[in-house]
Amino acid sequence: MLIIMTPGASKKEIDNVKLFVERKGFDAHPIYGEIQTVIGAVGGKVIDPREIELLDGVKEVIRITSSYKLASRVFQPQDTVITVNGVKFGGEHLGLIAGPCTVESYEQMDKTAIALKKSNVKILRGGAFKPRTSPYAFQGLGEEGLEIIRAVADKHKMAVTSEIMEISQIPLFEKHVDIFQVGARNMQNFNLLKELGQIRKPIMIKRGLAATFEELLMSAEYVLSGGNKEVMLCERGIRTFERVTRNTLDLSAIPVIKKVSHLPILIDPSHGTGLRDKVAPMSRASVAAGCDGLIIEVHYDPDNAICDGAQSLYPAQYDKLYHDIKKIAPIVDKKVI
Amino acid sequence: MLIIMTPGASKKEIDNVKLFVERKGFDAHPIYGEIQTVIGAVGGKVIDPREIELLDGVKEVIRITSSYKLASRVFQPQDTVITVNGVKFGGEHLGLIAGPCTVESYEQMDKTAIALKKSNVKILRGGAFKPRTSPYAFQGLGEEGLEIIRAVADKHKMAVTSEIMEISQIPLFEKHVDIFQVGARNMQNFNLLKELGQIRKPIMIKRGLAATFEELLMSAEYVLSGGNKEVMLCERGIRTFERVTRNTLDLSAIPVIKKVSHLPILIDPSHGTGLRDKVAPMSRASVAAGCDGLIIEVHYDPDNAICDGAQSLYPAQYDKLYHDIKKIAPIVDKKVI
Amino acid sequence: MLIIMTPGASKKEIDNVKLFVERKGFDAHPIYGEIQTVIGAVGGKVIDPREIELLDGVKEVIRITSSYKLASRVFQPQDTVITVNGVKFGGEHLGLIAGPCTVESYEQMDKTAIALKKSNVKILRGGAFKPRTSPYAFQGLGEEGLEIIRAVADKHKMAVTSEIMEISQIPLFEKHVDIFQVGARNMQNFNLLKELGQIRKPIMIKRGLAATFEELLMSAEYVLSGGNKEVMLCERGIRTFERVTRNTLDLSAIPVIKKVSHLPILIDPSHGTGLRDKVAPMSRASVAAGCDGLIIEVHYDPDNAICDGAQSLYPAQYDKLYHDIKKIAPIVDKKVI
Amino acid sequence: MLIIMTPGASKKEIDNVKLFVERKGFDAHPIYGEIQTVIGAVGGKVIDPREIELLDGVKEVIRITSSYKLASRVFQPQDTVITVNGVKFGGEHLGLIAGPCTVESYEQMDKTAIALKKSNVKILRGGAFKPRTSPYAFQGLGEEGLEIIRAVADKHKMAVTSEIMEISQIPLFEKHVDIFQVGARNMQNFNLLKELGQIRKPIMIKRGLAATFEELLMSAEYVLSGGNKEVMLCERGIRTFERVTRNTLDLSAIPVIKKVSHLPILIDPSHGTGLRDKVAPMSRASVAAGCDGLIIEVHYDPDNAICDGAQSLYPAQYDKLYHDIKKIAPIVDKKVI
Repeated sequence: MLIIMTPGASKKEIDNVKLFVERKGFDAHPIYGEIQTVIGAVGGKVIDPREIELLDGVKEVIRITSSYKLASRVFQPQDTVITVNGVKFGGEHLGLIAGPCTVESYEQMDKTAIALKKSNVKILRGGAFKPRTSPYAFQGLGEEGLEIIRAVADKHKMAVTSEIMEISQIPLFEKHVDIFQVGARNMQNFNLLKELGQIRKPIMIKRGLAATFEELLMSAEYVLSGGNKEVMLCERGIRTFERVTRNTLDLSAIPVIKKVSHLPILIDPSHGTGLRDKVAPMSRASVAAGCDGLIIEVHYDPDNAICDGAQSLYPAQYDKLYHDIKKIAPIVDKKVI
Repeated sequence: MLIIMTPGASKKEIDNVKLFVERKGFDAHPIYGEIQTVIGAVGGKVIDPREIELLDGVKEVIRITSSYKLASRVFQPQDTVITVNGVKFGGEHLGLIAGPCTVESYEQMDKTAIALKKSNVKILRGGAFKPRTSPYAFQGLGEEGLEIIRAVADKHKMAVTSEIMEISQIPLFEKHVDIFQVGARNMQNFNLLKELGQIRKPIMIKRGLAATFEELLMSAEYVLSGGNKEVMLCERGIRTFERVTRNTLDLSAIPVIKKVSHLPILIDPSHGTGLRDKVAPMSRASVAAGCDGLIIEVHYDPDNAICDGAQSLYPAQYDKLYHDIKKIAPIVDKKVI
Repeated sequence: MLIIMTPGASKKEIDNVKLFVERKGFDAHPIYGEIQTVIGAVGGKVIDPREIELLDGVKEVIRITSSYKLASRVFQPQDTVITVNGVKFGGEHLGLIAGPCTVESYEQMDKTAIALKKSNVKILRGGAFKPRTSPYAFQGLGEEGLEIIRAVADKHKMAVTSEIMEISQIPLFEKHVDIFQVGARNMQNFNLLKELGQIRKPIMIKRGLAATFEELLMSAEYVLSGGNKEVMLCERGIRTFERVTRNTLDLSAIPVIKKVSHLPILIDPSHGTGLRDKVAPMSRASVAAGCDGLIIEVHYDPDNAICDGAQSLYPAQYDKLYHDIKKIAPIVDKKVI
Repeated sequence: MLIIMTPGASKKEIDNVKLFVERKGFDAHPIYGEIQTVIGAVGGKVIDPREIELLDGVKEVIRITSSYKLASRVFQPQDTVITVNGVKFGGEHLGLIAGPCTVESYEQMDKTAIALKKSNVKILRGGAFKPRTSPYAFQGLGEEGLEIIRAVADKHKMAVTSEIMEISQIPLFEKHVDIFQVGARNMQNFNLLKELGQIRKPIMIKRGLAATFEELLMSAEYVLSGGNKEVMLCERGIRTFERVTRNTLDLSAIPVIKKVSHLPILIDPSHGTGLRDKVAPMSRASVAAGCDGLIIEVHYDPDNAICDGAQSLYPAQYDKLYHDIKKIAPIVDKKVI
């Protein structure tokens, strides 16, 4: 912890701060600068830095220990690589996930899966429990939805990813789902994260609408510290003042996360932009920036989708995009199956 | 729904849009302006406006039905007034809640309650389950914490408010707590909100860090539509680029919410600023703007608080603030007990 | 400057950083913590901290000198009080400014001034040069506008404040205006600020839509360092994701600025909210939080105002507000004339 | 203009609104929906929508005319292509600009230009007048800086781009500079923009830190409406709550701007991220998303740069990036020289 005194701080004020932190169990190391004094406080228990900020003569207190450990590249220098149904995320691999926003019916999932199979999709997405801002909006097919996506995936030899919203849904997801998604609104549902630390299937955590990268990594730490090592992160757009796009997709997530963490970083360009014609450009951009995976909404008939059809690609658009991705990936030393 | 065509849209494009919405069950009413055509679409089922935005010649689609109903002042013109232990929130009343961030021990709660009683506090706050960014931080005393706050409150004839984090905690809260708080991070934990609609005790919903007022009201709607009419809203600061304050406390919440909704709007100046010396000015400001209540962190000994001591008032500071509030409230036609 | 090494940094990396900063003229003071090493770098010339951040083993670099000096309360502990036409801003004084958004005609200004005089207004506001997002919008009456507001103010023994947009307008403003306003969009027009440092009339600098408090104070520093000591700051709302209000008025500006600076802090509730019915509540809130002044839009006939009529008060509303302000101010130890 | 009434609005309120807009010269076209009434107001003069929002029974008013015309793709369907020294921006072309943040000396510019020439750079960037937050920071070499960059560019047959801060600098820039840059802080310096409409050289306008895409296009409209048709737009990062990156580079600017406007959209990944190791990934991403140009900071010796060395590439890094760009561009149907 570093305590920065104001330029005019008196000797008495400096001594008082030293005394305060020493009583809390820290060793105090003052550095007397030309203008200001800084006190390094080493050892000691966890303390709220604001307690010290309220002492006279203190300008600012800075904590120097980053709060995530297991998620950090310092803890594990080599990339985590997660494999699901032959698809790899992380390291030199770029994995692809596709499917509709919502499971609507067996027919809809089957037709979509048939179309996606031609583009070599091996992991199918589809929501069964939907977080909706309005209580009057369609809330998903629930358990039946999970059964449908599982059956269709099995038929086409695909794996399944779907969003979990509640601790009580865990047994159901264990049965039907291969990758558990934690949505942006649940990124800091700490009770849920703790329980997911007990699971032995991959967890994909989406960045909250106003979450920092550090907070996203802290949420990963909740799962990792429970013993589940297979965590992927997903950028899906943050909330800003801009109104044309639904969210602002922050692609700097890719180089930032890859520098500080060993966990795979995926991009969701569908929620990140909210409009179909922005999905392909932002997907290509993600690949060129070096992302470890993409999760893209595709529907066999977007015009009649129950939900988010406007941000879903047509199968032919996905196929074109898949071929572009295959061309861009090797330029950034990434493999796509 | 209003469909705004681009200035250069052709007759064919306009007709195509009309056809599209008519097939979805809407009546189409075009208005031909000098520069642009607008099509009003009336009736029809719920539709994602972005589906139409992707049609050729469409500039923008605007939904005109506000999505909350029961929370709206149109639905209920007169103010909702909620009474807890003789304290009233809403209408001409301003209610006060005070207490520490976290329940630490019986002694800490008792000493704090004794101090607060002198300032006429009748509702005691204190967290037992704490949402913490880090899995390594203190997570609260849990059930024991709720038992302590209940016992202390009973001793001093006070009511209790505390934050609920999980559906499974509901029976425990029913037993010990008079006002259920839903924290900012859980504002869109829709499963929890649905369950709280079944409770018959007041629910205080805090605005999420990046939530709009409309979304806050939609979350209230989840509880109201379950049958629980006693919902209060609470502004506790939003996340912006400013770094000096922990959050940006948005006091425009007060006139905005009071115009569109009948629900009481409270302010939490402690989390909203994060520093003790900002709490009194922002509390007075909230009262002068016409808020229906305040929830303020006070600790009998903030310097030794486990959590958030830096934003907790000393009892003497709270007492001074209480007397200022008593002077300001009548100027805005509010009563404080 | 404080250089925080990553937890796993090697001795070689630490030595390399020491060498690097010593070559730049700094003395290096390492503090060896349990987990991490921190190097304090004292003396030396100005250096971009990111240069060091790119060295191996460095986690973060923190500059410890705050960049404003003359604006700081460390430099001048007592409040700056600025007096214009008998109205005082700062210290124990709260000053009021009122008038229309834009000067439209002699008649409009005169009728407004007559109405405001009854509420004891002594400083008249009104824009002559208007910063408009669109080149096709009304850009103000220009020089003629300044002549009108000056003539009306002289007739009613009032002072004048108006917004300056360009260095070349300075001679004109010197002739007609008593307080020069620098608008939010020009807060970082550094060339203009430098020139205003040469003026000997008060300058009111409005916070930019995405400016931090520190940046606002740095802009004040440009004027102060030119020799002009009469600078007031003005909060007028920042841009956030919220869409109901035009901007988010950040009233924490008041306790924050008053703590770190001796300069008066004013609030503009008209631009800060953008809607008439929010102006009175937010004005009262500003006074209760301890602001040094308010600048409020009032028009004798808002329904027919050319510009921003929707956020202008009717004279009777201003008079009611004035009387509320007179009641609240003494509670926070402020005097209003 | 569309006036959306509240669900409970009475017939009297609706009639009153109709009367109000008709008196302002509009034709009123009500659409009676099941829940709400909407009034389309056609014709009439410009009016502040908030005036109507304050009438009883009005929920919201929406303006339907986009405020930029000349910048719109409706006005000019085909892409604007701007050519400078053989480099093309727009249409099927991707142009590259490189050079140091600041002109420091003849030697520094010459060495940098020699290095860049090997990577086929034909437009050299370098600041002579620097907008600095602090009045105490290095403000650039001024006129001497422009003379140096011009001399070096001439020697190596390159063109010059540099940032203009003030109307009075225009003659100097006309003499030495081929592309005038308007910085983010000056994006709404409307007086400057108007004057640049009179120039006959390309203008590059950078998006402000909190500016919407619509506002950026409105600023372009100021220049276009003055008669200068050669305007390029540049995304350089917006300000958000995230603190790891200096700004959040919003690459959705590319598909958004290309849809609504014919003007070229460039990306500045150096300011957009603020750190050298993020520049290459974000540059590749920009190309893959279809941008029309890149402006990248490169210094022959970044470790000894006066300013922003930390975000400047080494020449070898730029050369590697150039070759990656050459590979990615054809995949999105773009040509790079």
